[in-house]
Amino acid sequence: MAKNLTTRAEDYSKWYNELVIKADLAENSGVRGCMVIKPYGYAIWERIQAELDRMFKETGHQNAYFPLFIPKSYFSKEASHVDGFAKECAVVTHYRLKNDENGDIIVDPDAKLEEELIVRPTSETIIWDTYRKWIQSYRDLPILVNQWANVVRWEMRTRLFLRTAEFLWQEGHTAHATKKEAIAEAEQMMNVYAEFVENYMAIPVIKGLKTETERFAGALETYCIEALMQDGKALQAGTSHFLGQNFAKAFDVKFTDKDGKQEYVWATSWGVSTRLMGALIMTHSDDNGLVLPPNLAPDQVVIVPIYRNEEQLAAASEVAKSLMADLRSAGLRVKFDDRDTQKPGWKFNEYELKGVPVRIAIGPKDVENKTVEVARRDTLTKEIVPNEDVVSKIVGLMTEIQSNLFDKAMAFRSEHTTEVHSYDEFKKVLDTTAGFVLAHWDGTPETEERVKNETKATIRCIPLDGDTTSGTCIFTGKPSPRKVLFARAY
Amino acid sequence: MAKNLTTRAEDYSKWYNELVIKADLAENSGVRGCMVIKPYGYAIWERIQAELDRMFKETGHQNAYFPLFIPKSYFSKEASHVDGFAKECAVVTHYRLKNDENGDIIVDPDAKLEEELIVRPTSETIIWDTYRKWIQSYRDLPILVNQWANVVRWEMRTRLFLRTAEFLWQEGHTAHATKKEAIAEAEQMMNVYAEFVENYMAIPVIKGLKTETERFAGALETYCIEALMQDGKALQAGTSHFLGQNFAKAFDVKFTDKDGKQEYVWATSWGVSTRLMGALIMTHSDDNGLVLPPNLAPDQVVIVPIYRNEEQLAAASEVAKSLMADLRSAGLRVKFDDRDTQKPGWKFNEYELKGVPVRIAIGPKDVENKTVEVARRDTLTKEIVPNEDVVSKIVGLMTEIQSNLFDKAMAFRSEHTTEVHSYDEFKKVLDTTAGFVLAHWDGTPETEERVKNETKATIRCIPLDGDTTSGTCIFTGKPSPRKVLFARAY
Repeated sequence: MAKNLTTRAEDYSKWYNELVIKADLAENSGVRGCMVIKPYGYAIWERIQAELDRMFKETGHQNAYFPLFIPKSYFSKEASHVDGFAKECAVVTHYRLKNDENGDIIVDPDAKLEEELIVRPTSETIIWDTYRKWIQSYRDLPILVNQWANVVRWEMRTRLFLRTAEFLWQEGHTAHATKKEAIAEAEQMMNVYAEFVENYMAIPVIKGLKTETERFAGALETYCIEALMQDGKALQAGTSHFLGQNFAKAFDVKFTDKDGKQEYVWATSWGVSTRLMGALIMTHSDDNGLVLPPNLAPDQVVIVPIYRNEEQLAAASEVAKSLMADLRSAGLRVKFDDRDTQKPGWKFNEYELKGVPVRIAIGPKDVENKTVEVARRDTLTKEIVPNEDVVSKIVGLMTEIQSNLFDKAMAFRSEHTTEVHSYDEFKKVLDTTAGFVLAHWDGTPETEERVKNETKATIRCIPLDGDTTSGTCIFTGKPSPRKVLFARAY
Repeated sequence: MAKNLTTRAEDYSKWYNELVIKADLAENSGVRGCMVIKPYGYAIWERIQAELDRMFKETGHQNAYFPLFIPKSYFSKEASHVDGFAKECAVVTHYRLKNDENGDIIVDPDAKLEEELIVRPTSETIIWDTYRKWIQSYRDLPILVNQWANVVRWEMRTRLFLRTAEFLWQEGHTAHATKKEAIAEAEQMMNVYAEFVENYMAIPVIKGLKTETERFAGALETYCIEALMQDGKALQAGTSHFLGQNFAKAFDVKFTDKDGKQEYVWATSWGVSTRLMGALIMTHSDDNGLVLPPNLAPDQVVIVPIYRNEEQLAAASEVAKSLMADLRSAGLRVKFDDRDTQKPGWKFNEYELKGVPVRIAIGPKDVENKTVEVARRDTLTKEIVPNEDVVSKIVGLMTEIQSNLFDKAMAFRSEHTTEVHSYDEFKKVLDTTAGFVLAHWDGTPETEERVKNETKATIRCIPLDGDTTSGTCIFTGKPSPRKVLFARAY
């Protein structure tokens, strides 16, 4: 099977689209903007879910489930929230179809809803309407709840995983007695996301705060993690919001504190989505296809037998099965592909395209010599390994490949992060090196807006770490408390 | 905390509703017919999901995800399917809201969809529209895919878990080269469901075939498992459908077989939903609240310290922590509730209401005597157990309680399954013993319809096992090949 993948240098965007399709990750559906996540893509998402879910539970969160539909009036209750979300959404207006006189199926005009329902773009409103019933006293706090769900935002230009009308995500929604506790929660979840994305996805991220303009609709502060893709564009990989008392006030959620006083509840929300799949693909993959970090690969190792007759197949299978048992005992996810419908060369291509971290081939020579051929997906290198060393070799490779991917991505990010001291330099960097650009900014939405309009670059975040010396805005010459991180972004 | 639960004898339906609310399982939301699944209820659902998902994967299935929305025209393609589903559904007609001149939020009339979208009531149509692209050759078969998802069916009269407008479920959709293989798959999944429901939920089920009238819209054969609730009403706990080539023909899905001939693909679909939560509650619970089988209980054991001062608390905690470590090593899910905001009596009531299989209490006397008090939720009995015997005692109780619940439910079902020989007897049994009624039926939809109208009893299934001797229909006197299972049902 020829891969026929457009190269990144030829057309990055086309490379991405082709890779998603050819690696069997996802495809467009018959419904505009909605994707089908194929079994292989979904298996990666399940790995992401499993690790995140464990991390959420270890930090004291529980899962729950809230309605898909939100009454239209709920959106009106939090003013900035409605501006941010209610405009692009799927609206349910009827609850029945019927046959017309020709037998065609039409919407039954008699089955119009009194109040339209919005398919949730995010669930703050329906959840805070529920929390009102759950919270009376300080004893009921904190509430630390997460939901795994589908959401819909009506996007005009969609791309698989990166921007789709429907996507899958998790949304945490917590309620606290104090401001301090809520801020600590929002920060904790940003850190959980950073830890997950760096350690499991092997993607380095910059933690920071969003500017007012880029903040979540209804939040007082949005914490985020920002990653850099191979084309030099940034991708927001996760956000965690300190919502203050905005939603508590909008939905009248008060509690009695220890002194018997009534107070509004403090809130956070935080989420990551199937967009992470896009970040995963664009950070590590190459012109041969997907490259998966071992910690997230559904199959970490694939074993392919090479044979010309039944006898050779039987001999290779015997070695493979014993090896597979040993690797599984060592905790690895291993697949043995002995399908006789495809040739070894086809399979090699297939697993390269699908980013399986390590491929083992066992041919007649290998059986004779008591060796196997071990190929790494990340470096595309091969070596012959004696049977008795294979397990320890592979176990070591898992860590090595995981670190190598992270280090490569980190090196790329370092090479593509530039501090600039003038607007000219700023524009030049964006059009050459691209990547992250650190620059002084005067802190006003006006300047931010002007830069965005003129260069398509946005402030990705005000980093929480790094250089915090003050200076002058490169756009206006006004004072700037610290450099902020710009980039063109997905 | 007083439980104040209506008893089953007083009002079974009210008992159920109160229990669902008071045990913190679920509640109604601000959206008509849509429920909120609360953390405790969701934790049980997660246990159900985890076990089923494992069983699906062990039988070779993979998960995937298909769009929430289905274009209206897709429903028209399979004639019987549209009659079964398209009538009661949520219809998305617009994709934007806007502010009107008064600043109120209204649906933007300019943002009307060209073709309305249906929120999926089930996904056969969108999935078979996708399978057309996935299947060319026999090499692409079988496709063994499952989806965990939310679905919406516009129900007029809803009840928490049992019948809600939105519910959570899994839906398997498989594609096969031969009729035989598809039938084997449908039967296999009915058996997987039966095994899960009996071994994990401790609910005995009867496997059978639905009559033509009760069959899934679009299926040639519907396999089902039927359970009996404590009020003598039946509940369909899971269905598995042999769909023949209906959807392949409707969506033009053909494959080239080994001889190069084009054939339509054979299909199955199968599902269970959050309705299982209703079955779980109604099978085992009593007037004190929920009773959970250990295999599904989020907490299998709860430890409550009893104390009057800090010293006593410290002593009880020490015992509890060591015990907890030992129980966890033995693979049990254990919770230690040392909250000082509630009294032991309140906690006892709370865990009884929530159905935790075993409660351990540790008071000052226990500390002194090196014992603990072990209470079983199923029998409401208590005993004093020496510390050194606790772990083996509790491990044994897990199996014992699990079997006891199954046996009790099985005994109840046996007592409430009656063979009848006349229509008079049939009606009398329905109004006295209730439960399952075995009777000869002439096999016609007309008789089935008449019995349903006159008695509200339906044919739950044509059992796959049991007595298969022929006889005469008790309603018409016509010949009957075998007795079938009637009941009033949820």
